[in-house]
Amino acid sequence: MTITAAASINRQIRLASRPTGLPTSENWRLTEESVPDASELADGELLVRTLALSLDPAMRGWMNEGKSYIPPVGIDEVMRAGGIGRVVASKNPSFAVGDEVSALLGVQEFARIRAEDVRRGALFKIDRQLGTATQWLNVLGMPGMTAYFGLLDVGEPQAGNTLVVSGAAGAVGQTVGQLAKIKGCRVVGIAGGKAKCDWVVSELGFDACIDYKAGQSAMRDGLKQYCPDGVDVYFDNVGGEILDIVMTRLARGARIVICGAISQYNNDSGTAVAGPKNYLSLLVNRARMEGIVVFDYASRYPEAVAELAGYLANGRMKSKEDVIAGGVPAFHDALLKLFSGENFGKLVLDVAG
Amino acid sequence: MTITAAASINRQIRLASRPTGLPTSENWRLTEESVPDASELADGELLVRTLALSLDPAMRGWMNEGKSYIPPVGIDEVMRAGGIGRVVASKNPSFAVGDEVSALLGVQEFARIRAEDVRRGALFKIDRQLGTATQWLNVLGMPGMTAYFGLLDVGEPQAGNTLVVSGAAGAVGQTVGQLAKIKGCRVVGIAGGKAKCDWVVSELGFDACIDYKAGQSAMRDGLKQYCPDGVDVYFDNVGGEILDIVMTRLARGARIVICGAISQYNNDSGTAVAGPKNYLSLLVNRARMEGIVVFDYASRYPEAVAELAGYLANGRMKSKEDVIAGGVPAFHDALLKLFSGENFGKLVLDVAG
Repeated sequence: MTITAAASINRQIRLASRPTGLPTSENWRLTEESVPDASELADGELLVRTLALSLDPAMRGWMNEGKSYIPPVGIDEVMRAGGIGRVVASKNPSFAVGDEVSALLGVQEFARIRAEDVRRGALFKIDRQLGTATQWLNVLGMPGMTAYFGLLDVGEPQAGNTLVVSGAAGAVGQTVGQLAKIKGCRVVGIAGGKAKCDWVVSELGFDACIDYKAGQSAMRDGLKQYCPDGVDVYFDNVGGEILDIVMTRLARGARIVICGAISQYNNDSGTAVAGPKNYLSLLVNRARMEGIVVFDYASRYPEAVAELAGYLANGRMKSKEDVIAGGVPAFHDALLKLFSGENFGKLVLDVAG
Repeated sequence: MTITAAASINRQIRLASRPTGLPTSENWRLTEESVPDASELADGELLVRTLALSLDPAMRGWMNEGKSYIPPVGIDEVMRAGGIGRVVASKNPSFAVGDEVSALLGVQEFARIRAEDVRRGALFKIDRQLGTATQWLNVLGMPGMTAYFGLLDVGEPQAGNTLVVSGAAGAVGQTVGQLAKIKGCRVVGIAGGKAKCDWVVSELGFDACIDYKAGQSAMRDGLKQYCPDGVDVYFDNVGGEILDIVMTRLARGARIVICGAISQYNNDSGTAVAGPKNYLSLLVNRARMEGIVVFDYASRYPEAVAELAGYLANGRMKSKEDVIAGGVPAFHDALLKLFSGENFGKLVLDVAG
């Protein structure tokens, strides 16, 4: 890729106001800045051209005020987003022009990376031998890391276990299910709609997939049919009613991995969450429910990348991305696809593919 | 004790119907049977005179239909209850007349113990050197075992941790808090009413106790004041609103031990439980919530009894019982005291003290 004259403008999406419920276009503002010239960079700084951005459920939480595992995005700040980019100017000896990196680039076409962020390891070079740019946002990126450590370290699956994962066609869910299959589990997905469920089974190789849109009673029947001995590991990306129902089918000693709760993120005020009313099933079944935040495992990402890239290379695992065109201005519409569950696979915004 | 002629009648409390919400006197039937003569016992059987019965929150669950960790009490069956009794007739070489035993005697004055139950270890001799009969229903009995394994195996307290326990003046709570103090924790109780809170601090030696009856806002303030660095271990006996509020104060990596949910047992139908709406705090704080069922630790009770009896002997721990007089006919009224939270210490029904 060459940087053309047209790329002297950096388009950005900034948070204009905090949403109540589902974000609307009013919550965003498209701004333009001129791209810094290479000569403007301070020692240690980098200028990165965004290639692709990751669209994640966690983004909804970042838009809310209040304490969480990272601070909220401030009003008027560029929206936080992970992405893959290419170094177009470097005053840092560790990075050369042309290097491809993974970093929190933000929803913008160019990101100026501060020396301090480089120093504390906030970005890293990706190895295209191991995967494409979008795979580095998926199986080899945050969703893959979340799936890997959430499943293996928190879920502790044993061969022969039955694993259920919600958001099965999503970024984290697809890798959780495929990895659990590799580890010898019987794998049952939960996803929305027949088409998606068929895709989860035929494309991703899950043993079965339950369509939550078919209603509570169908979901109960599906769990009974596909998990006759109960659920040993439940990897939860959605919360709400689905979590409630799965809790009624826990096996003795089950592990519930709390990875997210996408069904609850857009409730009024974004914080009125429905608690799992069957949580006493944890008592009856001596089960546990535990949260995972992927950043805690940063020092072990290389181990996960090596193992997952091996599975991609030998064909035991697929990395499925749903890539949206349109660049930075298409951000809002693309994000909504995530919350309406339209995506088949990891949702990615192409910025300069 | 000698068995007098008057003791030829065995009074029993049977479950007449299943309650909705709080049990009423209509749910019980007082029946009388004649006490079996020693000559009627089959080989291996025992006849046990009940001395004291344990009144437990779990009893409410046993009255409900449906799958749990043990089957429900059947309609017309003698209500299940743990107790301490004295062998008054024995056709089992392992037990002599006069031995004192702990067993599920049921709410009745005499229990005929089947050979099969003796064989599978459903009763055991208590050692009066280690504690009184009521202490064997408390610190040395099920509540103590629950506290010991729930706290140490599931809660995993570290010296310097802050531990919060609800139902602090109750059977399990008192031992959880005292044991956590011995293990080097800062211990904060939650109990109902100023008198009970004062008692928890002055009698049991907790660092502080929060009165949940003072309201949500006082509870939040108390947690902030007494747990400035958050809650490392929360041992939950009550569920509901108190669980919700404690969840807002979890420290990173916190452990929540789900031991019970007495606030929820008497909801309509006994099964409509309020889920913990702040459960995503598990995610933010990489915390876990795990259930404990004491029966899983049966093979390790001797280890716990030895340690706890040592603390009783050297005065580092107290075993506080609230003993109700009146025998078997007083069972219903005594049980209600438990659900209204009137008891200071482990609630025990004296049957033939």
